[in-house]
Amino acid sequence: MKLKLKTVPGSIVAAQGFQAAGVFCDIKRLGTGKGSNKGKKRDLTLITSSTPASVAGMFTTNQICAAPVKVCAARVRKGIARAIVVNSGNANACTGPQGLADAREMTARAAALLRVPANTVFVGSTGRIGVTMPMDNVRAGIDAVLPLLGSTPVHADQAAEAILTSDTKPKQIALEFRLGGKTVRIGGICKGAGMIQPGMSATGARPAASSQGLHATMLCFITTDARIEPSALQQALQEAVAHSFNRITVDGDMSTNDTVLVLANGLAGNSQLKATEFRSGRTRVGDAAVFQAALSQVCLSLAQMIVRDGEGVTRFVTVRVEGAKTWADADAATRAVANSSLVKTSWHGGDPNWGRIIDALGYSAAKVVESKVDIGYSAPGSRKVLWSLKRGKPTEASFRDLCAAAAAREFDLHILLNLGTHSALMYAADLTEEYVDFNKGDVSDPTSLGG
Amino acid sequence: MKLKLKTVPGSIVAAQGFQAAGVFCDIKRLGTGKGSNKGKKRDLTLITSSTPASVAGMFTTNQICAAPVKVCAARVRKGIARAIVVNSGNANACTGPQGLADAREMTARAAALLRVPANTVFVGSTGRIGVTMPMDNVRAGIDAVLPLLGSTPVHADQAAEAILTSDTKPKQIALEFRLGGKTVRIGGICKGAGMIQPGMSATGARPAASSQGLHATMLCFITTDARIEPSALQQALQEAVAHSFNRITVDGDMSTNDTVLVLANGLAGNSQLKATEFRSGRTRVGDAAVFQAALSQVCLSLAQMIVRDGEGVTRFVTVRVEGAKTWADADAATRAVANSSLVKTSWHGGDPNWGRIIDALGYSAAKVVESKVDIGYSAPGSRKVLWSLKRGKPTEASFRDLCAAAAAREFDLHILLNLGTHSALMYAADLTEEYVDFNKGDVSDPTSLGG
Repeated sequence: MKLKLKTVPGSIVAAQGFQAAGVFCDIKRLGTGKGSNKGKKRDLTLITSSTPASVAGMFTTNQICAAPVKVCAARVRKGIARAIVVNSGNANACTGPQGLADAREMTARAAALLRVPANTVFVGSTGRIGVTMPMDNVRAGIDAVLPLLGSTPVHADQAAEAILTSDTKPKQIALEFRLGGKTVRIGGICKGAGMIQPGMSATGARPAASSQGLHATMLCFITTDARIEPSALQQALQEAVAHSFNRITVDGDMSTNDTVLVLANGLAGNSQLKATEFRSGRTRVGDAAVFQAALSQVCLSLAQMIVRDGEGVTRFVTVRVEGAKTWADADAATRAVANSSLVKTSWHGGDPNWGRIIDALGYSAAKVVESKVDIGYSAPGSRKVLWSLKRGKPTEASFRDLCAAAAAREFDLHILLNLGTHSALMYAADLTEEYVDFNKGDVSDPTSLGG
Repeated sequence: MKLKLKTVPGSIVAAQGFQAAGVFCDIKRLGTGKGSNKGKKRDLTLITSSTPASVAGMFTTNQICAAPVKVCAARVRKGIARAIVVNSGNANACTGPQGLADAREMTARAAALLRVPANTVFVGSTGRIGVTMPMDNVRAGIDAVLPLLGSTPVHADQAAEAILTSDTKPKQIALEFRLGGKTVRIGGICKGAGMIQPGMSATGARPAASSQGLHATMLCFITTDARIEPSALQQALQEAVAHSFNRITVDGDMSTNDTVLVLANGLAGNSQLKATEFRSGRTRVGDAAVFQAALSQVCLSLAQMIVRDGEGVTRFVTVRVEGAKTWADADAATRAVANSSLVKTSWHGGDPNWGRIIDALGYSAAKVVESKVDIGYSAPGSRKVLWSLKRGKPTEASFRDLCAAAAAREFDLHILLNLGTHSALMYAADLTEEYVDFNKGDVSDPTSLGG
């Protein structure tokens, strides 16, 4: 399908009817007078819709899941949202009944100020694990952010900044497209950096068969003025996340807080997209296909930004496994390679070490036959592959050429198992000294704890 | 059981009837005149028994398995061994039919010189993956090592050195004990360093249910003058490996070459230990219990040496999970924690970050309930635990005390899931800048490839 998806400014407030703002309310309790501005990065975001919006969400399948995830997973079932309040600096995870009460209070306070029902307000948190929320600061933040709401790109920038933790830069995008004669916009913001290998489901419950390999806190908030039923939006989001956020890994660790929320307020005035058009497994056609493509593109762009800005990351590698016997095999093979410490350190060094790759394939849960495996390199998205291994044997490719291919900042790693027809991919990163240095923590600072 | 296991010198040649030696034959083809002695580390070992010995073996369950593993897994079934030839510098993995022919030729050459049947000679390799063996050098090495065989500690030292790759020091041990009125000795050598999370089975075939989490090349060779049937020796080895080499991880990567071989030549003259005394699941009693304890102690000591000398390793952490619902849960929980990049970097920093630990538990395949989890620290082997988390809530333990506990070079991490009666442990290591730096490789040197 050829689609016109135009990039527009404003990310989370690009669509009609949405407003946002971000403030600093010192959730990490840095106190005042600590000097540098860096410590005063905004840390609380509010996003609102002028009218009730359809809402859909995907949440971490980690059994240890944060209070805001629990609140959102329950509320998303009702399908209606008016606002999202998000803080960084504290994950509100492993905080027990108090944490749940605090998450609810955050939504209730925003709801009261906005004069909307509390259960239409959603909440997200990221930061330290196991520390009770500094509610005085949070309340002050919510009160302070409300009068600042607006819908200019500057407002979007503030919102995008306030959700960041160890990210080095904000991540945002918005697209404009035509849907049934109407102009529709969709945009989003996200954050990631470390503890990144999301495995999200609609309810936060893990699918029985797939607990393995499902492993940042990543938070993503998307808004659109498309008109779409909540259940249709949920189906569209599941499809989009399956090919984006659930296919990324920085360090293989799945967070307690991973959350994607989409709000669709219908102000574009298109004829409503229905659940029947988005059934699981069904190919989307017509307007449903257009909307799906736009949502999927937003999710994919944001997901890739997370990998590129992962902690200490210097390489962006798309691991493509084809020819697996089953989809589960393709999935297991990509994750084994994408999360192998030895493979990731070799990427960091620009070392075309196929021995470590085939080793990881061999210990994965996927069926692999040494004499059938092909391994090669290409530029991102290209099918012009320089093969290092064919049918289990080193090719004639020169070591110099292979080194050049593996030295690229971004490349595709092609793995053909030649055992079947199933394929999968992962967007992955190298493992660097900087990652270790950053994460070994500074024990002189107890605020360094957490996820 | 109170046992007298006396440590004695000589490791692999401590038991009667065994000889060994190690030589440099330039398997990495460093050439001559390259200067430093460092490059001339011995790289070929021969170990012999003066009489036919019972043999047992455990081999990597990686589907990509090296030629020497295939040769040994087939020969071990016959139960008789006279010698083992081992090289470092080349793994003879992913080398196709030529690799298999080379592995067999190594055994045949040694057999001819020793005047024993070829199928009673075993072979091990570790080093680069995917490069055909430099057979001229190997042949010269085998010819050169034979006249050097002897049974002094110096011979053992040579043998222990020649099997090393990135290890910083040789690993060896020998024990002496009494068995039915006779004095018996058992000793071994091993190597490890990187690509270390062995999951070995008797045949190299993976158990259907446990492909997950099975992940150095580690090589271990053990000799004893005990008299024991081959099938009894195999059962004893499986029991020993299950609690030692299969419970260690440096970087979570399972190698193509992991091998443990034990030779028992019977020269101690004890009454023969029978298979019936070592049945799977059966508690060993009497002489069987004594032999099992000695073999288990040798395996555990050598396995722990591998972790302590892992690439870049600065901490040795015993991860103990108790109270799991099933054994598979206990296993999955220990491996998730022991292999989490974020947990391992926090160990490196001496950071008592329980948030990362509970996060890893939560995404593991194990059943975990946040409000039941206890996490704490103790000195190695001590039950005096400083708890950081009790029933999912931070304790009153001071951050300073927790930091002191986590700053130890060696400590036990206690995790109580409080859901059942099953337990498991892993011997694990931190993740350091040195590990990354070492493994990112030097692409100016193609010999840096491999496992």
